Amino acid sequence: MTASVFPPRLAELLEALKFLPGVGPRSAERMVLHMFARQPEGARRLARSLAEALTSVRPCSRCRMLADGDLCLICQSTGRDPSQLCVVESPSDLAAVESSGAYRGLFFVLSGRLSPLDGIGPEELGLEKLEKRLDEGVIRELILATSATVEGEATAAYLGRMAQRRDIRATRIAQGVPLGGELSYVDSGTLSSALAQRRQVD
Amino acid sequence: MTASVFPPRLAELLEALKFLPGVGPRSAERMVLHMFARQPEGARRLARSLAEALTSVRPCSRCRMLADGDLCLICQSTGRDPSQLCVVESPSDLAAVESSGAYRGLFFVLSGRLSPLDGIGPEELGLEKLEKRLDEGVIRELILATSATVEGEATAAYLGRMAQRRDIRATRIAQGVPLGGELSYVDSGTLSSALAQRRQVD
Repeated sequence: MTASVFPPRLAELLEALKFLPGVGPRSAERMVLHMFARQPEGARRLARSLAEALTSVRPCSRCRMLADGDLCLICQSTGRDPSQLCVVESPSDLAAVESSGAYRGLFFVLSGRLSPLDGIGPEELGLEKLEKRLDEGVIRELILATSATVEGEATAAYLGRMAQRRDIRATRIAQGVPLGGELSYVDSGTLSSALAQRRQVD
Repeated sequence: MTASVFPPRLAELLEALKFLPGVGPRSAERMVLHMFARQPEGARRLARSLAEALTSVRPCSRCRMLADGDLCLICQSTGRDPSQLCVVESPSDLAAVESSGAYRGLFFVLSGRLSPLDGIGPEELGLEKLEKRLDEGVIRELILATSATVEGEATAAYLGRMAQRRDIRATRIAQGVPLGGELSYVDSGTLSSALAQRRQVD
């Protein structure tokens, strides 16, 4: 297919669709043809819900997860353990931890990782809000689930000290061989972490 | 990832995204997180261009292709041969023919195929407009590029008679083995068409 059959307004929509992850020129064309040649009702519904989400979605005032009111669903929930706080780098990471089903505490979403070279310091990450949260005296454990990169580790170390100054236990999620991972396919950095963090067999 | 971390407005957007071709639950989640956690500017641009397209895109008054003014890009073009008219079933099919680069005439887009059982007769396909077009006396050849299905063939036969009544030549696109197709993988119906439509070797 060639873009030349699309009038200017649809050509602009094609461009706008391509910013979505996993959408290239061909799939954008398929989407436009599907919306306008076959399913205008679906396109109207998408336009409406996207516009509504854009006006109402904002960071949760407590944890900075995506919310469409003052608080996100997790902060609103009464069934979570308020003594545990898991720090993640982004809403996607929160969703990943949540889907593991292994965590029932609360979250705090940074807006990235400490990266002094890029001008990202404690203020940019919203750490002031996190410090206030720790000062409330409810949290007993700060679980550091930042990514396993240089910046992620630096962020975890910084946050760990912040917790320890308040006598709050700080823990870091384990690094090691992924479930089902064959040793011969695991990179050497992961393998050396897995060795360093080896556990006593019960 | 689990949908439970998304507030109601984003859950509704997730549902709306899933109507797009090739978008399932996981890719819809990835799109929402990308738009709202990382690229709000891209989401705003998408919302704007989708809303604009929805208000301005409509069928071309001459050929029923998607257009954002009175005429589509092809009907507006002065470089096309007005004596050839290619009939296709949908804007997607027009885009496919156009991308072949093998056709320089004009088009007419049906809104589907004749299917009496589904209540789709000549009026539903906009054939009145096509008849007027043929009556203008400019078209010399009507190329029937409807699909190679029972309804597509019935539609082609009906349109062919419509052209012949006006002494306009009607042609049907060839059916046969696709380019690069290995005979052992081609279905028997295609193969029997390819045999029936065999050509003299020059």
